[in-house]
Amino acid sequence: MSLLNPISSRRRMKTGNLPNIKIMKSLDQLQTIFIEALEREVLRIGETAPTGLYEPVQYTLQMGGKRLRPVMLLYAANLFGNDYQQAVPAAIGLEVFHNFTLLHDDIMDKADIRRGNQTVHLKYDENTAILSGDAMSILAYRYLGQTDAELLPKILPLFTQTALEVCEGQQYDMEFETRTDVSVDEYIEMIRLKTAVLIACSLKMGALLGGASAKDADLLYDFGINIGLAFQLQDDWLDVFGVTSVFGKKIGGDIRSNKKTYLLLKALELANEKEYGALMKWVNAENPDLTHKVEAVTALYKQVGADDNARQLMQEYHSKAIISLDNLSVAEADKAPLYQFAEKMISRIS
Amino acid sequence: MSLLNPISSRRRMKTGNLPNIKIMKSLDQLQTIFIEALEREVLRIGETAPTGLYEPVQYTLQMGGKRLRPVMLLYAANLFGNDYQQAVPAAIGLEVFHNFTLLHDDIMDKADIRRGNQTVHLKYDENTAILSGDAMSILAYRYLGQTDAELLPKILPLFTQTALEVCEGQQYDMEFETRTDVSVDEYIEMIRLKTAVLIACSLKMGALLGGASAKDADLLYDFGINIGLAFQLQDDWLDVFGVTSVFGKKIGGDIRSNKKTYLLLKALELANEKEYGALMKWVNAENPDLTHKVEAVTALYKQVGADDNARQLMQEYHSKAIISLDNLSVAEADKAPLYQFAEKMISRIS
Repeated sequence: MSLLNPISSRRRMKTGNLPNIKIMKSLDQLQTIFIEALEREVLRIGETAPTGLYEPVQYTLQMGGKRLRPVMLLYAANLFGNDYQQAVPAAIGLEVFHNFTLLHDDIMDKADIRRGNQTVHLKYDENTAILSGDAMSILAYRYLGQTDAELLPKILPLFTQTALEVCEGQQYDMEFETRTDVSVDEYIEMIRLKTAVLIACSLKMGALLGGASAKDADLLYDFGINIGLAFQLQDDWLDVFGVTSVFGKKIGGDIRSNKKTYLLLKALELANEKEYGALMKWVNAENPDLTHKVEAVTALYKQVGADDNARQLMQEYHSKAIISLDNLSVAEADKAPLYQFAEKMISRIS
Repeated sequence: MSLLNPISSRRRMKTGNLPNIKIMKSLDQLQTIFIEALEREVLRIGETAPTGLYEPVQYTLQMGGKRLRPVMLLYAANLFGNDYQQAVPAAIGLEVFHNFTLLHDDIMDKADIRRGNQTVHLKYDENTAILSGDAMSILAYRYLGQTDAELLPKILPLFTQTALEVCEGQQYDMEFETRTDVSVDEYIEMIRLKTAVLIACSLKMGALLGGASAKDADLLYDFGINIGLAFQLQDDWLDVFGVTSVFGKKIGGDIRSNKKTYLLLKALELANEKEYGALMKWVNAENPDLTHKVEAVTALYKQVGADDNARQLMQEYHSKAIISLDNLSVAEADKAPLYQFAEKMISRIS
């Protein structure tokens, strides 16, 4: 085809923009592709000496999980081009980083179980958990570093900024445990840092790797932030109002441990003097009947309107996420799975 | 000057290649330049929220130290060009990474004191030490990431490989504490990973940033490995044969704690049956008189020839380092401080 023929040239460009030319993988297909790629790497890592360092890395990465972040990254890359394969190393890097933060968080939180498995610091020991985690954070950069040299300067600062923010979120989370003056705004900022930015980073990184414009990349980042915030609020909500058999963990855990969730902080803010007193009596109670406590605090959350307020805020974040998607300059059909994903975030029951 | 004048153009190029045009800073000058740059960054870091996360980072970076690695990096950059300033962010990155490893090592080793200061996990708490260390390892990448985009793909894989090796070295070091079958070769490999590769990486990274050929960069890497090995062997040697008032820490600490140093492992290898029995009697003694133990083991090290053997091996590493320097294609006058530095490594008494 002659480059000098204006008609065929125009036709070609038009065709290039038609959705039927781009081969869009589904989220499920990308999840399968990612899991296969990850498994190959995990095998290699597990065989690396010293195995005392790398076996716990393998163990951590084999625990499973939805692989939400890498799948979002690959889907975002695919939105702007067919070569999502070149984004696989970065997707692995993000998943390795996410699992590194879980590993070290579990030491700090003295958690026993992660995804039904013994945590690394219990299965091995604490020093192993610290050092294997350190190796994972470096491994994350190794995978990110496999990205094409010309794209690397775009994604590296984004990742590093995000990784620092995740540490900052964990720091706030730990500080909130002993503080008694945490505001609702501070809580939202904490979950933005601890949870939302890494989801947002995944989407933006994928977009950049796929060749998106800066505007589209930022729209996907904003989508990720709002979805991430809605996700965490839904998590807090399900811990109180969910159904144990579906949610997968015992309902009321946050109330039992006086965790400063959105519901507790908002309830204290909305409560009148009497309700505030009743809530604080349960928070400060020594050795309370826990079943009774969960029932009473749940009732108070409803009474003061924290329940409705939380659902309303989730809806607001969801609406903001949808606006970002609306403005994204890709075919509607290709956006559909992201709309569905957003919907699932606020309607999920597990 | 006209760009179209071929004579002045040629003259300019020639002049640019003459050694007297390069302004070579001394190691001391580069140390001062580095410390000033680091202090500016440390102030900024210390002011960043959440201070609970970043103050321990500031505290760690303010403990001082010789700043050996960044100074080597800057000197290597200066060997190949005048613009060592562009290498300063990478130098800060390497120093931040080194201090991150010390911070996490101190948790794992349950160390109380670092450079005369309380360690972070004692001054703050263990969770703070883990998380602030994590932030430091990411900060290291943030500084490295400030390197010019076209040089980044050269130095990033080098740094990541080195950082993983340092973790591997720490893993071997921890494993050696409980193993009873550590060979001399395994010990050398451990100190290569734990200590030598980061010094070698500093020199090679500086060379690459300064525009060195791959050959010169590799020669400086080899120089760093051999100097690093000599440095660690000298450290082991001084712990037994040094003078407390000069060495700065109590002599015989390694013997007291049965640390598997080169001297102990080599002594066990060189010992005849009787000497082996005498050494193992001290190693296995429960509640021995420690002064007596240090005297006796020191005497055995001399008797079996481990003392001479260690000094000879240091000399071998030193000689290898010198050959690398000899082959380096820069002016002899510019290499002089590196020759002196190598000399100091094996003749130092503190």
